[in-house]
Amino acid sequence: MHSSAMKVKTRKLPPCHNSLATALLVDAYQITMAYAYWKNGTHARIAAFDLLFRKNPFNGEFTVFAGLEECLRFISNFRFTGADIAFLRSEPFARTMDPAFFEFLAQLDCSSLKVFAQMEGGVVFPRVPLMRIEGPLLVAQLIETPLLTLVNYASLVATNAARHRLIAGEGATLLEFGLRRAQGADGGVSASRYAYLGGFDGTSNLEAGRQFGIPCKGTHAHSFVQAHIGFEDIADSTLNLPDGGLCPDFIKLVKEQAESLLEVVDMLPGSLRWAETNHSELAAFASYALAFPASFLALVDTYDVLKSGIPNFLAVALALRICGYQPLGIRIDSGDLSYLSLQAREILTTVEAVLGAERAGGFTNLSITASNDINEEVLHSLNQHGHSITAFGIGTHLVTCLRQPALGCVYKLVEIDGAPRIKLSEDVQKITIPGRKEAYRLYLKNGEPVVDVMLRIDEPQPREGERILCRHPFISSKRAYVQPAHVQRLHNLVWDGSTQGVCIGVDLSLMASRLRCMQTINSLRADHLRYINPTPYKVSVSEKLYDFIHKLWLEEAPVGEIV
Amino acid sequence: MHSSAMKVKTRKLPPCHNSLATALLVDAYQITMAYAYWKNGTHARIAAFDLLFRKNPFNGEFTVFAGLEECLRFISNFRFTGADIAFLRSEPFARTMDPAFFEFLAQLDCSSLKVFAQMEGGVVFPRVPLMRIEGPLLVAQLIETPLLTLVNYASLVATNAARHRLIAGEGATLLEFGLRRAQGADGGVSASRYAYLGGFDGTSNLEAGRQFGIPCKGTHAHSFVQAHIGFEDIADSTLNLPDGGLCPDFIKLVKEQAESLLEVVDMLPGSLRWAETNHSELAAFASYALAFPASFLALVDTYDVLKSGIPNFLAVALALRICGYQPLGIRIDSGDLSYLSLQAREILTTVEAVLGAERAGGFTNLSITASNDINEEVLHSLNQHGHSITAFGIGTHLVTCLRQPALGCVYKLVEIDGAPRIKLSEDVQKITIPGRKEAYRLYLKNGEPVVDVMLRIDEPQPREGERILCRHPFISSKRAYVQPAHVQRLHNLVWDGSTQGVCIGVDLSLMASRLRCMQTINSLRADHLRYINPTPYKVSVSEKLYDFIHKLWLEEAPVGEIV
Repeated sequence: MHSSAMKVKTRKLPPCHNSLATALLVDAYQITMAYAYWKNGTHARIAAFDLLFRKNPFNGEFTVFAGLEECLRFISNFRFTGADIAFLRSEPFARTMDPAFFEFLAQLDCSSLKVFAQMEGGVVFPRVPLMRIEGPLLVAQLIETPLLTLVNYASLVATNAARHRLIAGEGATLLEFGLRRAQGADGGVSASRYAYLGGFDGTSNLEAGRQFGIPCKGTHAHSFVQAHIGFEDIADSTLNLPDGGLCPDFIKLVKEQAESLLEVVDMLPGSLRWAETNHSELAAFASYALAFPASFLALVDTYDVLKSGIPNFLAVALALRICGYQPLGIRIDSGDLSYLSLQAREILTTVEAVLGAERAGGFTNLSITASNDINEEVLHSLNQHGHSITAFGIGTHLVTCLRQPALGCVYKLVEIDGAPRIKLSEDVQKITIPGRKEAYRLYLKNGEPVVDVMLRIDEPQPREGERILCRHPFISSKRAYVQPAHVQRLHNLVWDGSTQGVCIGVDLSLMASRLRCMQTINSLRADHLRYINPTPYKVSVSEKLYDFIHKLWLEEAPVGEIV
Repeated sequence: MHSSAMKVKTRKLPPCHNSLATALLVDAYQITMAYAYWKNGTHARIAAFDLLFRKNPFNGEFTVFAGLEECLRFISNFRFTGADIAFLRSEPFARTMDPAFFEFLAQLDCSSLKVFAQMEGGVVFPRVPLMRIEGPLLVAQLIETPLLTLVNYASLVATNAARHRLIAGEGATLLEFGLRRAQGADGGVSASRYAYLGGFDGTSNLEAGRQFGIPCKGTHAHSFVQAHIGFEDIADSTLNLPDGGLCPDFIKLVKEQAESLLEVVDMLPGSLRWAETNHSELAAFASYALAFPASFLALVDTYDVLKSGIPNFLAVALALRICGYQPLGIRIDSGDLSYLSLQAREILTTVEAVLGAERAGGFTNLSITASNDINEEVLHSLNQHGHSITAFGIGTHLVTCLRQPALGCVYKLVEIDGAPRIKLSEDVQKITIPGRKEAYRLYLKNGEPVVDVMLRIDEPQPREGERILCRHPFISSKRAYVQPAHVQRLHNLVWDGSTQGVCIGVDLSLMASRLRCMQTINSLRADHLRYINPTPYKVSVSEKLYDFIHKLWLEEAPVGEIV
């Protein structure tokens, strides 16, 4: 009974991160429906709504739930301001409305609601509600659109990020670089936040870094290289050394190292025979190293990765070594990332071997960051063909979720004044599971979750070690007995309006959700997670709930007649 | 010379609509590059950047430019606050930075910039810059990410909306219903704004309605129907009449009309033979009509459109007529929209014919709104198969731009201290056109635009009636003489930082941009606009610019060597 036993903290959460998340961030019909409920006197009936999705995104078999903290901020601060009311009254649909309704609206908040939810960052599956909202029909209905808006994209990006993490492997550094291609400022900031939740290591987005404490990463763009013409661009060539000393002419050092590299060029692998590299690029790298000697990472593909970028990088990197600094590595933003990264690694390794540890120690293990339209498929292909990339910068595909840019979360009425409601559809997948439900995740002895099962709200919790029949909600033949070694209740009371509070014991911080995401994904059987043809995870209902669904279904569905 | 002759208004624009559009809404590398420029003393060099895209979205041959007003708000208010600076100083990359840099940053604004741009709402084409930013390298580079973020999605959605308008036809009402599936709160609000710009008639999103004055539309959801059990749900059945009278029992009237409909059911078209409709649905419709007697529009597909939704709608609609109100129509959110809308129209027409103008006048022309996963393809298919829909509610496909969720706008350095810069690429499409350029749209006598041509900045403007050779920028054989009847300069000075002002004569309002969008689209030749295999609109360069590009290209590109 851990959810009801949880203590409630009496505190107001801060407002949403986006100032656009007002009480008016709703579809107009939420207001017209609210008025109709108020007018016919049904507004205070106690309703229960399920927020759920019906299909995992990206042809996958799991979803990461995200957006809960933002939803609770919204709920905690939900109020129509004077300006909101004034706007509503000015709308054409308000012309015939009773003015007393707006007085009623002005008093409204979420103090009469209870919200139960799965945990942010947890792995979730179709049909098991992510959230259940209980309370007066009018207010529970009014918050439909903002909750969907705050959950849909958050969960989609977090899932997308987690999928990229799975395919890139735990060792890779994953950086979100998508702000410029995001769907609006908030699309970018939300993407950074939820990509981090889903397992990314950092972002390029400084605003997101500030708001959520996400590590920020970045070096320079092609335009930085293009903006340099030659060494004459560098006003000051002195470099402070880490030991307190001074290199009086770093550029001279870079030129000497460039010369010295020509002597070993024959020892370098394959067809790499450079003679003259692009001088403005060399000047740009030297300039960047003067600005960031302790974190030198160069974008090497402005002209030609192998003929110009890498030798120029090496010249500057060797000069930095002499000054007592260790370079970080290179970034490649175009071309055949498999081939170029393998070649780059071979050059770095050979240079260290040929020049020795004194001059080029650690070059073998320098970082190679790759960017340029990377997605799951590219990562999969790189894994197949081999590569030597240590970090990926992922933009458009990650933040716009190009493979599937929307998650279809819906918000369905399942009970009103204790009476269950079912929404029928020609499409069986779209039939809602009526009534309030508890959901449990059942685990095997080895710690693997094996099935999620929903029970009617008043059924006793499944017990560890006892067999329970788990049934497919719609297909009568699909059923199995499960004897769980461990039973986890999935829905926690996360908002109890009567105390204006959020539950103690529910850590809503981004770091906690990020950890939860990694842990729950790692607890899943590998075949649910694989890139190609993953196995569906089972979602089921108890025998009682099964019978209940099918009884209501038959009652509601008209018998067809063929004439 | 209209752009330079334009007067400049000295006023600060209001801040961006989204509070997340701060000076920190940048990729981290903008800051590290800024530092390196500042450190090597090149930060004050005068740079020119082009903001452009390379390929029209959605397999189309045109794009609508949007986001300019928001960019100018950003530029006008661009400043690092004390809190911004404090955050930057706390970042790991700042550890080795000279503190004087942050004092420099704290003083920075866009007063040293000039911005030239095409008009918001105008139709634009690949490679012709949407904006050119001129000014000190450091600050012109710093605003790259926010400008891209504010233009990319805005232009994508506006283009998507314009495409939906083209295929739906001018007579259809188009409503944006996408907030719940949008990529964040801002994704939703921006979508509403730019869908309206692109030719939509309204939105469901009240916050967007408030911010931008867009008409808001909406009725009720399935949950409203489900929330009703029967007539006992309706506390008050009296209805005030438009003439000041009172209907003492509207429900009684509805029941009578439902009975009376059974008498004419044999005269209704095809296989439509209803006997018993869903009573809770009838109660819900009556309840909604009591709340909105003057704007009754019912969602008729909760149970069965033809067997239950439409007869229930008719009962309530006939009762409203008796009370002196005219119903608006129905909404269908599932099923075969072609078939259902045609059947619905036939029923409405027959009912008016059978019951007469007194009881059912105007029913023939009631509105039929369709929603449910509508996109360009569905609209195309509805056109092919026939339908009787008057309004479309379009959500997910419109707001997430599901067919192509990102527009690839880029921001490229083209000149520094008067020296042109070219960015080469293996992919010819990605080669930038160097130097500052003017662009003109050339029109034929019949008013059709025929080609956009870019000239070097110091070339004289093409003259009406004089032949000009327009060349493909990269393919030497593609060239044509054009003798324009009318010449339009495409870039206006929209921001002159020296006076902190926006140009007078540039109407940046949403309504003006919306009108401009419709007008410029309508001026294009139809074959550029068609859904399948549209003809590309020509984008060209002058002879001088052509020679200039190819001279620089040869200078910069290394000669390959095959050994």
